[in-house]
Amino acid sequence: MISNSQIKIIKSLRQKKFRVLHNQFIAEGDKTIIELIKSNYKLCNLFSVNPKVGGVTNELTQITPIELKKISNLSNPKDSIAVFEIPQANIIDYSSVIIGLDNISDPGNLGTIIRLCDWFGIQDLICSLDTVDCYNPKVVQASMGSLSRVNISYINLESVIKNNKLPVYGTYMDGESVYKKALIEKGIILFGNEANGISLELSKCINHKISIPRFGDLQKTESLNVANTVAIVLSDNSRKSIER
Amino acid sequence: MISNSQIKIIKSLRQKKFRVLHNQFIAEGDKTIIELIKSNYKLCNLFSVNPKVGGVTNELTQITPIELKKISNLSNPKDSIAVFEIPQANIIDYSSVIIGLDNISDPGNLGTIIRLCDWFGIQDLICSLDTVDCYNPKVVQASMGSLSRVNISYINLESVIKNNKLPVYGTYMDGESVYKKALIEKGIILFGNEANGISLELSKCINHKISIPRFGDLQKTESLNVANTVAIVLSDNSRKSIER
Repeated sequence: MISNSQIKIIKSLRQKKFRVLHNQFIAEGDKTIIELIKSNYKLCNLFSVNPKVGGVTNELTQITPIELKKISNLSNPKDSIAVFEIPQANIIDYSSVIIGLDNISDPGNLGTIIRLCDWFGIQDLICSLDTVDCYNPKVVQASMGSLSRVNISYINLESVIKNNKLPVYGTYMDGESVYKKALIEKGIILFGNEANGISLELSKCINHKISIPRFGDLQKTESLNVANTVAIVLSDNSRKSIER
Repeated sequence: MISNSQIKIIKSLRQKKFRVLHNQFIAEGDKTIIELIKSNYKLCNLFSVNPKVGGVTNELTQITPIELKKISNLSNPKDSIAVFEIPQANIIDYSSVIIGLDNISDPGNLGTIIRLCDWFGIQDLICSLDTVDCYNPKVVQASMGSLSRVNISYINLESVIKNNKLPVYGTYMDGESVYKKALIEKGIILFGNEANGISLELSKCINHKISIPRFGDLQKTESLNVANTVAIVLSDNSRKSIER
């Protein structure tokens, strides 16, 4: 049984201002929830149609499928929905490769970029303050548990770049081919907004412009999706790391 | 001014059975529409809040923003919505690299895969009969005009593979590293369903299992998004083609 006030709070957590207010976020689906619990995320409440989910007892409230439908953010709700405390981001480790996102607005893109960072062993993902919130339910959903293994910080990218004298790489349509670029062992690789690319201010801070060569005969494709660009750049750099 | 029967037909084209019945599909946004017109797609009707779109006169009906909202599939409608005739797919060219999709269900994934094929010069994309329809409005939207530059065929993949004695590559979690694999110059590269991968039946037809190495310390990431997998495999193969 779930109370009306609980329903109200859970639904409010779809909005960033309430996530900030309560310092909480929601995750759906047993697999993601169990992964977050294992990764030491603090579980506040768990609502499930199952009597048992990942050994949780104290925080579990068993609910009906109708109640689940009321609180779920999905058109086809999974079995459970959990409320977690938003953890503090760890200190950024500037000694290895960092991915920087400038105003990424699509939650699905951010979610898959988090998965890519996890896959390719990128520990730190730094996001401009106007990038979509990583605790947005659609990002949590798309990141599929990888959220717990990547340290995500929202910061003023310009100040970070100016304060840390690191090499800064940016992806453009007209940079040096990513295939020819030497292995990147340290520094920030920046990716820009889906429609507008990297902002003018940040462009000024970039030391290395890189691009992904286009191979079609017609050469008319306008651009690649930003998550696909991250995939290609990270894969190509990882390839170089094992070729040495 | 748009008639009620026109509104009804346009809305019906969101569903595959009506697209098949009318042999028509819809596209939104001036940029995509103009690109499809230039690519010799047959324009049936164009509804726009603008008095002029890409030199179209005969097929243009000027409408109000309120009427546009009624027929648009987008939460923030663009200026125009067009009805095009569905073209016949061209004959598949088996002499170069072909991408095969087995039961891809997410329209956004198919749309970005079409963009990737266009970017990397893949002419033929062959899809299992249960893959999402490429004239689904969300696919048209996500493909951003690339739809007109990739030849997409819906066929029985098993028969095609058996009838054409081509090498067949499949992406798995446990195949040979894509980085070590020689350049693929001919054959079908298969990618499977978002949740279940390549079907058992098709798996039997595969000659080369390939995979993308995982680099994270924890090695816990379950999988990559299928569009990101396509991005990495195509990029890596293209890189090899210029390294020769």
